[in-house]
Amino acid sequence: MHIPETSTIQPWLIFEDAPAALAFYKAAFGARETYRLEPVPGELVARLSVGGAEFWVASGGVKNPDMHQSVRFVVVVPDPEAYFEQALGVGATAVFAPRADHGWFSAKVADPFGHHWEFGHEVD
Amino acid sequence: MHIPETSTIQPWLIFEDAPAALAFYKAAFGARETYRLEPVPGELVARLSVGGAEFWVASGGVKNPDMHQSVRFVVVVPDPEAYFEQALGVGATAVFAPRADHGWFSAKVADPFGHHWEFGHEVD
Repeated sequence: MHIPETSTIQPWLIFEDAPAALAFYKAAFGARETYRLEPVPGELVARLSVGGAEFWVASGGVKNPDMHQSVRFVVVVPDPEAYFEQALGVGATAVFAPRADHGWFSAKVADPFGHHWEFGHEVD
Repeated sequence: MHIPETSTIQPWLIFEDAPAALAFYKAAFGARETYRLEPVPGELVARLSVGGAEFWVASGGVKNPDMHQSVRFVVVVPDPEAYFEQALGVGATAVFAPRADHGWFSAKVADPFGHHWEFGHEVD
């Protein structure tokens, strides 16, 4: 289990044409691909590193009415449950409870301002 | 001059009621305030740390027609000029050229997808 030494916030950006966005950020920011999942050509989830700072590029959700924001946040922390419980206690709503999925252990909340925050870490 | 050891991405979130957002994130995420500028009561720019991961909470811009996104990105890097020039070379547009302002040396671009990216670092 990978426990981060320092928490990081990794923005998760959703695009109608994620491959085009990926190509642009590589060219524009010299971004390096550190993760890629592409179950169907063009349906992409990739993580990019800009000098060690990471963000995500993903396909599609902007057309999904449940996803009213094209930007979310992944916060890599050692203790996602603690953040989840604390946030629910003061008015956040659960998007999903702590769970293991796709090699991550994470939980997600929506804050009162419409932003989605996923707290989690990779699982070895 | 502070040169970061590792680049970080710090989301910059704009709220109609930034003080309310600040209070919520402190309570919900245990966030700690690491910077605060409040020239007028309620007109707030603050940086928050969640276990070392930082993001910004700022007042107002969502009503400004020039600011069509309520989320931007600050990327803390040692060489903002290099990122600025590289990004302009492949289709980003300049929001502002490298400059010193408010204790930061930074430059900002808009990407072809509508996101704004500020590359910079604090200046001692």
